Amino acid sequence: MGQLIDLSEFTFTGEKQLDLGNLPTQIPLLYADKKDYKNQLEDFQERIHDLQNVMYAHNRYSLLLIFQAMDAAGKDGTIRNVLSGVNPHGLQIFAFKKPSSKELDHDYLWRTTVCFPERGRIGVFNRSYYEEVLVVKVHPDILTKYQFIPKEETQDVNKVWDQRYESIRNLETYAYQNGTRVIKFFLNVSRDEQRNRFLKRLQTPAKNWKFSESDVKERQFWPDYMKAYTECINATSSPKAPWYVIPADDKRNMRLMVAQTIEQHLSELDMHYPIISEETKADFKKYEEMLMND
Amino acid sequence: MGQLIDLSEFTFTGEKQLDLGNLPTQIPLLYADKKDYKNQLEDFQERIHDLQNVMYAHNRYSLLLIFQAMDAAGKDGTIRNVLSGVNPHGLQIFAFKKPSSKELDHDYLWRTTVCFPERGRIGVFNRSYYEEVLVVKVHPDILTKYQFIPKEETQDVNKVWDQRYESIRNLETYAYQNGTRVIKFFLNVSRDEQRNRFLKRLQTPAKNWKFSESDVKERQFWPDYMKAYTECINATSSPKAPWYVIPADDKRNMRLMVAQTIEQHLSELDMHYPIISEETKADFKKYEEMLMND
Repeated sequence: MGQLIDLSEFTFTGEKQLDLGNLPTQIPLLYADKKDYKNQLEDFQERIHDLQNVMYAHNRYSLLLIFQAMDAAGKDGTIRNVLSGVNPHGLQIFAFKKPSSKELDHDYLWRTTVCFPERGRIGVFNRSYYEEVLVVKVHPDILTKYQFIPKEETQDVNKVWDQRYESIRNLETYAYQNGTRVIKFFLNVSRDEQRNRFLKRLQTPAKNWKFSESDVKERQFWPDYMKAYTECINATSSPKAPWYVIPADDKRNMRLMVAQTIEQHLSELDMHYPIISEETKADFKKYEEMLMND
Repeated sequence: MGQLIDLSEFTFTGEKQLDLGNLPTQIPLLYADKKDYKNQLEDFQERIHDLQNVMYAHNRYSLLLIFQAMDAAGKDGTIRNVLSGVNPHGLQIFAFKKPSSKELDHDYLWRTTVCFPERGRIGVFNRSYYEEVLVVKVHPDILTKYQFIPKEETQDVNKVWDQRYESIRNLETYAYQNGTRVIKFFLNVSRDEQRNRFLKRLQTPAKNWKFSESDVKERQFWPDYMKAYTECINATSSPKAPWYVIPADDKRNMRLMVAQTIEQHLSELDMHYPIISEETKADFKKYEEMLMND
């Protein structure tokens, strides 16, 4: 593997407060050229592939990767590029869009909870329950129109966000205690770079179909989103469920940083292939003979 | 791409009857050496990747690949190797093992039906509802002990299989009419080759954990399974939901044949990137200016 970058500036575990205005959306390039980038990424992919294989055989832990970002920050491409080397049996990806009416008939954590990864798997949430304290907070009419608000809070909707932060912290603590590691990425793209990417979608016929009117409209709420992200990340960062605020203006840099983070978390898990008991080994001899004579 | 092989001998669309005794489990190698195999497979992977991207953007069709086989025939490895190039967002893999008690509380098609691929995706079933006319037919006590039998059939369990074949045919016709193409693979491994692979699992410490006592026990029912596969494939082959009986004694050959089949089916779909209307194009100009001045 290439040289590892010190990610501590971008890591939030609850010890320091996030101030998005002070965090870069662009850092010096981590690769010399495209070839070097590809080599570095492939090294990470292989390591992640191998570690996931052990995780699958060990059948004790799972890893849930949550990706949140403004539109066009590169969530899809990052997930695709970083994880495409993983055995697809061990990978469970879910993208959460506007909730269906069936989903709205449940509590707001239900639709994501049923998608938590099975033991031994890497789960990926492309958007997640965090939307409930991001888009819903920026547009609180969603809350009052479609969702359940505890009766005692109807006078002060702001209390709802604190309740939700707490519920999310509790959910992630519960997941940790039961073997699921939850790692959260905010792909931190600048407003200028988002404009460039939208323009590219408009100006490149092959990318036209990716353009959505509503994306441009949401862009008008940029400061509200930054405020919501800051509050949310500060309220839900913990050593056991950290947030990573990854500079996203250079896609390759971003992917290398995400890959390194995933590799690091997987390698810290105490995992091994199942150990065969002496008793079972004796049985093996029996089956071997049985098959030899078959 | 390398030279394509004529798959008609291994293709079952209901026109000819399958006789497993007359179909090879091994055919001449389709590749010169390991490097040639890798090149050929990569070509297929790229084509499948590109076609799936169009399928995703087009958002009309989906493809469901069903893999059935005796133990150790290589289902997992084939799925992993053939499909690892596909954008993981567009791939939904499910492995069906012994049904849970919750699943048994439903009709026997329920647990797989809820996993049918979403539009634009490739779905993969590693084992499937076909187990209901394979393992359940070989061990009919499963049926009488755990599953619902129509009252009028309790006198003659054999009628159940015909009903199930019909229900499966109807399900696959329904899927076709609604845009889901169902392609079924039987990875046809010989009894001798299965023995070799079991022995390898027993004799290679790193493979020990894959060995399961019950696999060896099921092996004793080989003729019953071959009979069940033959009847099932003959009863459920149709032009719109064909079966492919793929020689599986050489894993690389098998993967190339599976890859070719998938590529062929995808390329036959009438798909294109979404077409942007003139009206929308005019809107695009508006948004472009808006962003330019942002």
